[in-house]
Amino acid sequence: MALEIERKFLIDIDKLPILANGYDIKQGYIQTKDKTAVRVRVKGDEAFLTIKGESVGATRLEYEYAIPVVDANEMLDMLCGKPIIDKTRYLLKHKNHLWEIDIFHKENEGLIVAEVELESEDESVELPEWIVKEVTEDARYYNSNLLEHPYSQWG
Amino acid sequence: MALEIERKFLIDIDKLPILANGYDIKQGYIQTKDKTAVRVRVKGDEAFLTIKGESVGATRLEYEYAIPVVDANEMLDMLCGKPIIDKTRYLLKHKNHLWEIDIFHKENEGLIVAEVELESEDESVELPEWIVKEVTEDARYYNSNLLEHPYSQWG
Repeated sequence: MALEIERKFLIDIDKLPILANGYDIKQGYIQTKDKTAVRVRVKGDEAFLTIKGESVGATRLEYEYAIPVVDANEMLDMLCGKPIIDKTRYLLKHKNHLWEIDIFHKENEGLIVAEVELESEDESVELPEWIVKEVTEDARYYNSNLLEHPYSQWG
Repeated sequence: MALEIERKFLIDIDKLPILANGYDIKQGYIQTKDKTAVRVRVKGDEAFLTIKGESVGATRLEYEYAIPVVDANEMLDMLCGKPIIDKTRYLLKHKNHLWEIDIFHKENEGLIVAEVELESEDESVELPEWIVKEVTEDARYYNSNLLEHPYSQWG
């Protein structure tokens, strides 16, 4: 059983250390009827097709497969809901954890979130001083929901 | 660009030659909002995740990736719409083409279809004498539609 356990936070960008070595991520979703997500992602010069089950707290089933970048770009163009999510990801080590800082562009310009992946739901995480608020269970911040309700329209 | 061009037919089972070496196929679909299909298939001891675009005539975009059987069985159990399609497939060579004969079970018991894959939409196919009627463009016969409207309920 492949399980993804991930917590998501809003951050205070003024307190962040300088970020370096970011890479572009473009991702889209084949629109599903239920809470299962089918994600197509191009990440630098790699691409992945990912199936995620419904979130229960910070946990969800996840199956991820590397696919050819040319396939992923075609699927983003022709099969995924629009707009495609475009963000730059930076990795930041803090104590024992690796944080992913996602800076969104285009329709989600202004949105910045930090995610940390855990081994179990009750694993303790020492929160960096730049963390403002946890939004793990706030569905508005799911990438799959940022398509229909991009951050720039939250008002 | 990966394109699948396939014609589908109903057959007269009494005229079929004896079938041998069939293998079981179990497949399910992650239910999508539009005409894109996300199929999980276990075929003998192999498994595949397949993304198919909307059909236009006999043609549709198709992307297929081999995945671990254990993943596919979990996805069939936990993420796919029910019922799962269960069929036995036999391969039959006729003149220059390889035909797939699918004999459905359970909710679709009684349904038998033959499919032939082509290089182009206008490729000519010599139809075997056991072909009764073409149903390529009849959406009721799409495997993805047999979930919500299984053959046993067509009445």
